[in-house]
Amino acid sequence: MRKKISLLGATGSIGVQTVDILKSNPDLFELVSFSAGMNIEQVQEIARTFQPKVVSVIQKEDAEKLQTLFPNIKFVHGADGLREVAAHTGADILVNAVIGSVGLEPTLEAIRHGITIAIANKETLVAAGEIVMAEARKYEVPILPVDSEHSALFQALNGENPKEITKLILTASGGSFRHLTRNDLADVTVEEALAHPNWSMGNKLTIDSATMMNKGLEVIEAHHLFDIPYDQIDVLLHRESIIHSMIEFQDTSVMAQLGSTDMRVPIQYALTYPNRIPMQNGKRLRLEEIAQLHFEKMDFERFKALALAYEAGRTGGTMPTAMNAANEIAVGLFMAGKIPFLKIDDIVERVMNEHETIVKPSLEAILEVDQRTRSTVYDMIQ
Amino acid sequence: MRKKISLLGATGSIGVQTVDILKSNPDLFELVSFSAGMNIEQVQEIARTFQPKVVSVIQKEDAEKLQTLFPNIKFVHGADGLREVAAHTGADILVNAVIGSVGLEPTLEAIRHGITIAIANKETLVAAGEIVMAEARKYEVPILPVDSEHSALFQALNGENPKEITKLILTASGGSFRHLTRNDLADVTVEEALAHPNWSMGNKLTIDSATMMNKGLEVIEAHHLFDIPYDQIDVLLHRESIIHSMIEFQDTSVMAQLGSTDMRVPIQYALTYPNRIPMQNGKRLRLEEIAQLHFEKMDFERFKALALAYEAGRTGGTMPTAMNAANEIAVGLFMAGKIPFLKIDDIVERVMNEHETIVKPSLEAILEVDQRTRSTVYDMIQ
Repeated sequence: MRKKISLLGATGSIGVQTVDILKSNPDLFELVSFSAGMNIEQVQEIARTFQPKVVSVIQKEDAEKLQTLFPNIKFVHGADGLREVAAHTGADILVNAVIGSVGLEPTLEAIRHGITIAIANKETLVAAGEIVMAEARKYEVPILPVDSEHSALFQALNGENPKEITKLILTASGGSFRHLTRNDLADVTVEEALAHPNWSMGNKLTIDSATMMNKGLEVIEAHHLFDIPYDQIDVLLHRESIIHSMIEFQDTSVMAQLGSTDMRVPIQYALTYPNRIPMQNGKRLRLEEIAQLHFEKMDFERFKALALAYEAGRTGGTMPTAMNAANEIAVGLFMAGKIPFLKIDDIVERVMNEHETIVKPSLEAILEVDQRTRSTVYDMIQ
Repeated sequence: MRKKISLLGATGSIGVQTVDILKSNPDLFELVSFSAGMNIEQVQEIARTFQPKVVSVIQKEDAEKLQTLFPNIKFVHGADGLREVAAHTGADILVNAVIGSVGLEPTLEAIRHGITIAIANKETLVAAGEIVMAEARKYEVPILPVDSEHSALFQALNGENPKEITKLILTASGGSFRHLTRNDLADVTVEEALAHPNWSMGNKLTIDSATMMNKGLEVIEAHHLFDIPYDQIDVLLHRESIIHSMIEFQDTSVMAQLGSTDMRVPIQYALTYPNRIPMQNGKRLRLEEIAQLHFEKMDFERFKALALAYEAGRTGGTMPTAMNAANEIAVGLFMAGKIPFLKIDDIVERVMNEHETIVKPSLEAILEVDQRTRSTVYDMIQ
């Protein structure tokens, strides 16, 4: 029987690659619903190919227009639309590939309907990791990582006892500016920031990768996904991104997952888990051609955002929520040319300094902190 | 309840490290029997520490002498002694850490008594892999690898489906002479050959490592242990020996086990499997200190012994038996200063050219080929 897939964020970077995998394996997967943004051409193409039950878009008028073109598909929109796609179309797996904390509520709703979550939207776990994981435990729903680092950790944990873990070791490429000093970063441009050396990712992720906040979000995500204290999560600079991450066990053995830098591999693994299927046009790893792998100690002064993320994670409560919201807005402002690159870290730090953490927050408190922080950041730069 | 351990080859390199692990974990392990060679001092020390039921030595007079010193322990000797230690002392696990094909018969006897085998003696699987694995399947006895490469593969296979394997990738340091060309090898000395750059191993293994025959034996061993065709077993030069080996799966993911070059780690893993326990004085891997890992394509002309081993493995039947026996004697002759280094390969090649392979040989045929080949090699150099 084919697995029924719901996909949030079908036209983003991870979404497109997910669609590619579903298209390559029509015998294994059925796309029952998806959400997308404003790219209506792309929505039509995906709808034509898969004939899903439900499609959600952002704007009401787009939904109405599409409804006349595809009478057999139900078009919905907005936040209600996301929830319908996520939890009410009989899916086996929800792939959460939206950007930002908008993925949080639909994910919780899907969990409560017993739907397995394949999570590419790290902000969901950063903003509300404790709530999401508690619900997942309560409803016995697996949360499968899609990020290459977390997928690597998840794979390295296959057949192992999590109690025997001594370290999670996340690798970090160093991003677009890894060869620059912190002083050099003052004048970098948006175009330079968007040129990631290894991975083809969405823009927000590429900027986060340049500040190293992306790795910070991953540290917090790993903490929640694998229930490991921050002191046992290390970040190692590894410029080639070939070792996608590692786990050290108490006997000193280190288990690692390696591969080409192809996001389709971790996406597909989440969809086929616990099985592996051949990768369509997959690129085999050839270490003899790569010849050298490099490793360096993380520099927390150079990559200040990572230090801030560890601090937010250790503080817990609503602090990661505030940090994440501040970062989302600051990155947007940088991409819009409104602030220089280093100002991203400054804004995040200032928000964290001013934030009064709520310990064990409710979902409502988290959403409120998220919204309030966004306004605060806009106010800051007026 | 403590695991009962029998140990063949207690005074060799692997044996000593096994004893070290047993000594560090008296709550987990009990040494019920062991065999040793001629180092009677060491035998007494091990006997005193562990008070096993049975101890086997090579010579009858040594057994008699020891019997008077330890009246509560039974001392036996020779081939019968090995079999008694291996299969008749109520062990849960037999650690086969002898050198050469002498380990074969006691291993088979232990399998028939339902005893789990932790195998460090690769010649057992090279000489009679099909027979040993068939018996292990028949008696449903696990064969746990102790070699660091095979342990790495075994660990990388945790929780995976062997049918999804596309490649086993054994790493090879290149041994003591990896920086020399084949021509340079003509005049190398025994002392030079015994200086292995990474691992502390027994002498025979260190010479095999310099010729790359060790990796050839490992390829054949991997073929039998994991039931993978030779075309799907690759060898990759990796001078640091940090990635101990890897498995590529059909989705292009590569799972690897990494660690310091400490043989106690794979030995301990075989003893504690499926659990991992803390490594006494274990050295944690610090990739940031190692900084670089190097990989190179294997050169089958430079390392001719590896090409010969692949050929022997693919031919099958008694060919690997003959190859292994020729190599054992040739290495002995080199260490005794009787032949130059490159003559080892020549002898193995000549024996293989002259050997008439018996397809699907009986154990008797294998033992006969083994013995006959040894005499042939001695005759060759008269």
